Parts: sequence; structure tokens; C-alpha cells
Amino acid sequence: MKKLEQLYEGKAKKVFATDVDGVVIVDYKDDATAFNGEKKGTITGKGAINNRMTNYVFQQLEKEGVPTHFVEELSDRETAVKKVSIVPLEVIVRNVAAGSFSKRMGVEEGKQLLCPILEFSYKDDDLGDPFINDDYALALGLATQEEIDTIKSYTRKINEFLMKYFLNAGMKLIDFKIEFGKLADGTIILADEISPDTCRLWDVETNEKLDKDRFRRDMGNVEEAYNEVFKRLGLA
Amino acid sequence: MKKLEQLYEGKAKKVFATDVDGVVIVDYKDDATAFNGEKKGTITGKGAINNRMTNYVFQQLEKEGVPTHFVEELSDRETAVKKVSIVPLEVIVRNVAAGSFSKRMGVEEGKQLLCPILEFSYKDDDLGDPFINDDYALALGLATQEEIDTIKSYTRKINEFLMKYFLNAGMKLIDFKIEFGKLADGTIILADEISPDTCRLWDVETNEKLDKDRFRRDMGNVEEAYNEVFKRLGLA
Ligand SMILES: Nc1ncnc2c1ncn2[C@@H]1O[C@H](COP(=O)(O)OP(=O)(O)O)[C@@H](O)[C@H]1O
Ligand SMILES: Nc1ncnc2c1ncn2[C@@H]1O[C@H](COP(=O)(O)OP(=O)(O)O)[C@@H](O)[C@H]1O
Ligand SMILES: [Mg+2]
Ligand SMILES: [Mg+2]
Repeated sequence: MKKLEQLYEGKAKKVFATDVDGVVIVDYKDDATAFNGEKKGTITGKGAINNRMTNYVFQQLEKEGVPTHFVEELSDRETAVKKVSIVPLEVIVRNVAAGSFSKRMGVEEGKQLLCPILEFSYKDDDLGDPFINDDYALALGLATQEEIDTIKSYTRKINEFLMKYFLNAGMKLIDFKIEFGKLADGTIILADEISPDTCRLWDVETNEKLDKDRFRRDMGNVEEAYNEVFKRLGLA
Repeated sequence: MKKLEQLYEGKAKKVFATDVDGVVIVDYKDDATAFNGEKKGTITGKGAINNRMTNYVFQQLEKEGVPTHFVEELSDRETAVKKVSIVPLEVIVRNVAAGSFSKRMGVEEGKQLLCPILEFSYKDDDLGDPFINDDYALALGLATQEEIDTIKSYTRKINEFLMKYFLNAGMKLIDFKIEFGKLADGTIILADEISPDTCRLWDVETNEKLDKDRFRRDMGNVEEAYNEVFKRLGLA
């Protein structure tokens, strides 16, 4: 497979064209951003960790019946994936109160929720990815009811799988964000990444944060946390 | 029926106990507030208009199969209603983009939505009534799934009725906010009010605003707008 011109540079990854129809290469960077790009930095080694971790998790999810964009890991930081048009919804799952949820709702960080929350944000950096509900998505033509149903059903499966997967490695899955894409024929598949950039992971005993909150909140030991997750998952 | 001690004073109404079991009296004030109480003022005659209009609409809605708290109009500003425990959800319906929705979503005020939006806010003044979704309500124990289903089904009926009702009087129903309550036996009924305080109403020809936005936005002719709505509805 030939890596051709860069199609897009996002905050954490670059996307390149290839000579294979319907396949692009994502190239994971060490760049870290937070608060919609306001805070910027570097987390050395993050790109390689997020690439390997995403690819491992996506392959496991395929076995659970969740179709993903994964095609082939090409290097430490590069992976061939099915090219999709991203559904403009950030899909967030919350098992435990944290972050913006805790602030907005006046619920203490760490509080177990009565049931998992699935929520959508409208993926639009200019608007600050505003929180929406299903009706917003329909009323603004962001997705159809059928697409929303598919996305929700995959997302619940993904949460079930990830909670067990991380718990086995001594971590609680507090919340996470995923993105779905559409193939040319309209099929919905999981795209983007699943990594400490996109998951809140707390040590099951000490509640130590092992994710991007260490960067967001200037807690130090950011690289160490990403490496710790990678090691605990047996991927190092 | 005897009017006894004041139980509560809200921003727009006072609630009084009575000597009849399960019945309270709501007393509509001319006080107007906006932006979660930051802006304060008076709209002369508003209390009487909102009382009469709410009572008329609630009686019509009963005929459409929506149970309400209405018992008996006692005076210009006072109505006996079934005492409920208010479900802590502000139920908002949007037919056309306006207000906070337009700002948050970058959608021009006045744009027709592809379908009506039903949304919930968590009724909590200290938190600023934050926008939530169904899962939030379940995960925080604000309502059960059955209560949410009932509330949504009544709300859709109410929107259908109100759109026609206002259109007949030359007004477009842009959006509105309602509240539901629970009787002692758990029955969900429509409570609170439906008035130019809680509905955005635009003249069908000119799009002139005939509602509380005239107060919120210092547009002038506030009393005139409330009186115009009252007259068009044949209630004056
Ligand atoms: N399979 C895919 N096909 C096309 N684009 C993708 C795919 N997977 C992820 N993307 C997109 O690649 C872009 C780069 O990723 P990232 O750096 O995380 O971007 P962002 O700054 O939007 O978070 C994002 O817009 C993401 O949605
Ligand atoms: N049938 C009812 N029984 C008990 N409380 C009610 C009923 N209908 C409305 N209320 C409540 O009466 C209070 C007074 O109304 P209002 O002045 O509009 O209050 P707010 O300042 O919360 O908007 C509100 O808390 C409202 O929810
Ligand atoms: Mg991203
Ligand atoms: Mg009120």
C-alpha cells in the first residue's frame, strides 16, 4: 500500500490517501489538546500507544460483532483504515460522574450513576461540540433514526466490552467518547480511536487517574499514565 | 374553598394551601424575570392574562385526553389546582429555531426544523436548569422510563393541539416550556402554566414577536403583546 498525499490534519492524527480504493492511513501524533484546542502540548510516545491500543481494541470489538474501520497496522504510529464519512456526532458514554458532567449537573466526581448515560455532541469545533439529544440530530439532519438506533446499539455493546476489558487490567472505565463513520453504501462502522485520550480510566483501588485528565488538569506524570495503561493491558 | 397560608413564592406565581385535601391555589403575579432571574421587571396585567389563558388551554387539553391540574378559576389571578409534586424536568418543544437553541447550534432564528424537538432541562435554578437527555433523567433518578414515556406522549399531543390553536389565531408556535407533576398515586398530569411567558409566539404574517422575548430583549410594547395574544385567542 502506498501512502499518498495528506488529506487532513486533526488535533491528534493525520489522515493520508493511499493507492487502495476506500482505504486511508491514519498517522497518530504526540500532540495533545484540551478544552476544544485552547490548551496545547505534547505527550511523548502517546501516538504509538494510542495507535496500538486502538487497533487491539477494535479487533476485539469486531469479534463482539461491532464492525470497525480497522484494516491493518502499518507501523508504530500508522494504520490503514476504511475511509468513512464521519457521522457528525461525538458519542459519549458515562458510567461514573466526572468532568463537565459533574460540573454541569452538580454531581460529585466519582459518583456511580444509576445506569450508563449515552449522549451525543454535535461534532463542530466552531460551536464547541455542543451537547444535543436525539431529536436535535433528527431535526438538523445529522443522522437518521435508523443510524441513531444502530449507533446506540453498537455503543452499548462497546461499553459492556470495554468495562470488562479495563476492569481485568485493574481500571474502572469512567466515561469515553467514540465516533462512527459511514461507508459509501451507508453501513455504519466504528471509526476514530479508543485510547487514554478518549477514555477516562481510574485505578480500581486508588482511583488514580490514568488518562488525559492528567494533561488537562496539569497533574504531572502524563507519559507515565499512558505507559501504565499500555502495560496493564499487556500491549507493551 | 378557603385560601390558607402561602406555601411557596416562585418567580411568576405564589402557591397557597387550602382547606380542601389535595388542592392548592396558584396566584399569578405581574412579576417578570428572565435569564434565570438575572433580569427583573413587571408586566402590568400579565398575571390575569396568564391565569385566564392557562385555564382555557388546560380545559381544552383535558378534552384532547391530557390530564391537567386545573380545578376551578377563582378570580382574575387565582386558580384552584390539584397539588402535585413537580417532576424536576422542564419539558421544552421547539418547532422553529430560536433563542438559546439558535445560539448554541448556530442555526438562524426562524429556521423551520425538520421535525419538532422535545428536550428536557433539569429544573434546578442553582445549576441554571441545565439541558439533559433521557439517560440523564434515568441515571440521576429524576424520573422513571415509564414517566418519561408518558410525559413525551402528552407533550407531543400538546404540541399538536397548541400549534393548531395558535395558528387559528394568526400565530406560529415557535417553542414552549411545560411542567408535569405527580399526584399522590403517581399519576402524571400537566401542571404549571401555558402562556406568553412560556411560549414563543410569532405573528404568522410579519413574524412579530408576541411573547416574553419582548421583555427579555427590551423590545418595548410588552403589555401590548400579551394583550394582543389574549384578544386574538378570544379570551379578552
Ligand atoms: N476511518 C476514517 N475515515 C476518515 N476519517 C476518519 C476516520 N477515522 C477518524 N477520522 C477522522 O480523522 C480526523 C483526525 O483525527 P483527530 O486528530 O482525532 O481529529 P480531531 O481534531 O477532529 O479530533 C478526525 O476528523 C476524525 O473524525
Ligand atoms: N399543581 C401544582 N402543584 C404544586 N406546585 C405547582 C403546581 N403547578 C405549578 N407548581 C409550581 O409552583 C411554583 C411557582 O410557579 P413559578 O412562579 O412559575 O415558579 P418558578 O420560579 O419555579 O418558575 C413552581 O415551582 C411550579 O413548579
Ligand atoms: Mg479526535
Ligand atoms: Mg415558572
